[in-house]
Amino acid sequence: MSNKGPKILSAEEMNVSEAKWITLKKLNWMDAEGKKRVWECAERRTRKGSGIDAVSIFALLRSKKNAFPLSTVIIEQYRPPIDKFIIELPAGLIDENETPEQAALRELEEETGYKGDHVTLSSPVIVADPGMTNANMKLCVVSVNVEDDTVPEPKLDPGEFIVKRVVELSKLMDELDEYDKKGFVVDARLYHFASGLVMAQKIKDGLL
Amino acid sequence: MSNKGPKILSAEEMNVSEAKWITLKKLNWMDAEGKKRVWECAERRTRKGSGIDAVSIFALLRSKKNAFPLSTVIIEQYRPPIDKFIIELPAGLIDENETPEQAALRELEEETGYKGDHVTLSSPVIVADPGMTNANMKLCVVSVNVEDDTVPEPKLDPGEFIVKRVVELSKLMDELDEYDKKGFVVDARLYHFASGLVMAQKIKDGLL
Repeated sequence: MSNKGPKILSAEEMNVSEAKWITLKKLNWMDAEGKKRVWECAERRTRKGSGIDAVSIFALLRSKKNAFPLSTVIIEQYRPPIDKFIIELPAGLIDENETPEQAALRELEEETGYKGDHVTLSSPVIVADPGMTNANMKLCVVSVNVEDDTVPEPKLDPGEFIVKRVVELSKLMDELDEYDKKGFVVDARLYHFASGLVMAQKIKDGLL
Repeated sequence: MSNKGPKILSAEEMNVSEAKWITLKKLNWMDAEGKKRVWECAERRTRKGSGIDAVSIFALLRSKKNAFPLSTVIIEQYRPPIDKFIIELPAGLIDENETPEQAALRELEEETGYKGDHVTLSSPVIVADPGMTNANMKLCVVSVNVEDDTVPEPKLDPGEFIVKRVVELSKLMDELDEYDKKGFVVDARLYHFASGLVMAQKIKDGLL
């Protein structure tokens, strides 16, 4: 790895006609009172036949030999829009002729090396930032039974730089806070998931 | 309310020069191997001095007279980018000269009528969809002590149509699934929060 990057070199406004991956839309809409209004929205150009852009994966890693407590796997990845390393759930766009659940198992293995046994929960179609974009996704909870302590190799594409990290569920929020202190930025969906875990624990402990 | 809307009348690609609220950027970046690459990204034009776009609020509603169990408040709001009613946490953009925590208390009261007592937790800056946009936010957990069963009136802007709904924490995920079945769409951050609550409960009950 070179010490030159990753980093942003320059940024400029681009015309919609030039953009390959996303576009800008002007939505003419009528509100509840029949008044005509305008909304601006960004959209991906990559949505396939499933009608769903992406899938994220909450893996539940269980050790068959009780070598470690119930854990999940998160990833560190440089994201140009933020110009920082982001801590996220494994995730990816859904390919043509692929179900979200197939995409979840494929992306989990590509990004982390872990082979999921099955998708235990597949969310409804949910939306990432509905005031600004039409981006949608599914969250899949994937069960992974780990034979031993061997850490599998991911299957990354050339030019894809992703670091995986196995984290005990009970320590997830502490790990995210640590990452933040070190200058990483945490994805909102992962942070909300961890917040739910923590809140339930606090309620159980009579702290809320 | 008219039965004419809300709905999308038409949608068209728009030039960046025409857009007031968001824009499209071409990012020239260098990857970890020193290779020059291009990324496309959507950005809000509205970010103020705080450097943070928005805040979302997880309100913890407690009844002083034990009239109801620990609850939260979610909102139903038509979102043109999705052309559906979205179920979300109360949220909003941060105004100039406002801290995220002030924005959280203001937006909670405007959208739901509930006055927060204090912000019990303010997240680090987290990112909504870092592969596609630079959108960032904070999640604030706000403590609300409710005197009695009176439901407060929201303080909505003209043309703002938001319906609030108080939901017991232990039933949050069931409510979200119900909404989905009825044709509403759930925001990803809210869904991930609820997923964390449910997962913690399942672990406690020995179901995971």
